Amino acid sequence: MDIFDGVLWHPQEIERESMRQVEEFLRPLHLPPGQKAVVGRIIHTSGDPELAGQIRFHPRAVEEGLAALKRGAHIYTDVTMLGAGINSSRLNWWGGEVHCAVHSPEVAAEAKVRQITRSAVAMERFGEKLNGQVVAIGNAPTALFVLLRMIHRGLRPALVVGMPVGFVGAARSKELLLQADVPYITVLGTRGGSPLAAATVNALLYLD
Amino acid sequence: MDIFDGVLWHPQEIERESMRQVEEFLRPLHLPPGQKAVVGRIIHTSGDPELAGQIRFHPRAVEEGLAALKRGAHIYTDVTMLGAGINSSRLNWWGGEVHCAVHSPEVAAEAKVRQITRSAVAMERFGEKLNGQVVAIGNAPTALFVLLRMIHRGLRPALVVGMPVGFVGAARSKELLLQADVPYITVLGTRGGSPLAAATVNALLYLD
Repeated sequence: MDIFDGVLWHPQEIERESMRQVEEFLRPLHLPPGQKAVVGRIIHTSGDPELAGQIRFHPRAVEEGLAALKRGAHIYTDVTMLGAGINSSRLNWWGGEVHCAVHSPEVAAEAKVRQITRSAVAMERFGEKLNGQVVAIGNAPTALFVLLRMIHRGLRPALVVGMPVGFVGAARSKELLLQADVPYITVLGTRGGSPLAAATVNALLYLD
Repeated sequence: MDIFDGVLWHPQEIERESMRQVEEFLRPLHLPPGQKAVVGRIIHTSGDPELAGQIRFHPRAVEEGLAALKRGAHIYTDVTMLGAGINSSRLNWWGGEVHCAVHSPEVAAEAKVRQITRSAVAMERFGEKLNGQVVAIGNAPTALFVLLRMIHRGLRPALVVGMPVGFVGAARSKELLLQADVPYITVLGTRGGSPLAAATVNALLYLD
């Protein structure tokens, strides 16, 4: 017997079998279709069905996020890795692009002077450009804190995918996001990450 | 009281507090220094201390991986997102670069004809170039299966960071990696992902 017996190689077969297994995890959750697509893709991406219990949706999140993307909204991210995970051909088709400023020299210089993270500076510098757009945060709690401060001052992104990760500020930033007056999708607690945020955006891009 | 009271903004303070918390999770594990650095960075990246119990090291993995990187080994990945997470300035300093062929048109064409995944074709086409290099897989089990087949036929990467994710083949591919005659670092089961694989590589890049 070959050790590779039973391995699935065909992309559609792999996809179908994966979807079948994810569907089994989703069935008992009885989610509305849009939320189901997002949760399914997060489980698929993470290989971890237990994450489902940590995902929270603002009631209008899927609807407003999808509407924004369809009218060509851009996606602003805190880290380049997140952008690399987004299906940009679909996004570009609708007119949107992914933006991330964390590696800009101006951002690095300002962050150094102010002694705050580059992710926070990069998000802050986007400023009013974020109105009506999609913001996806997959790494830095400080980027989400800065965004929340701008939202408290009147900024209105169409959707915040708030999934920073880690032991310093991530859980707290996501608790504050739940109370903010903005459509959000988040994963509570210390877990999160670029693949989860990218999966969320990709689920929306493929909803239609 | 401001809702942002107590938020840490200073990058070094955040790093220090995070490391302090990760250190608490690591202490009871009594790992050798190199493995400790890898496990710590995976916990830090994932926000999930429970992953520590799933990580497995070939006894020479850290030593051989680090030695290869220091002599300028390249890193071959299955997905671009993984490359985006690698600290390439440190890698480039030693002479290495990140390579990923999954988006090449030739790979797409061959994958279509053979009805296998692009990740598998991309890995297979690297072929003998992988001898003595570091291979990092953060997404596709088929890329790891193909690599394992090449290893069975005599290929010898310096290190395989094998962390594909999902419900179809990921757990199985990692079980086979444990039995392969090659230095490896892996996360057992269905979980894995680009950030974990990138964290592993970055831990090695910063070991010295």
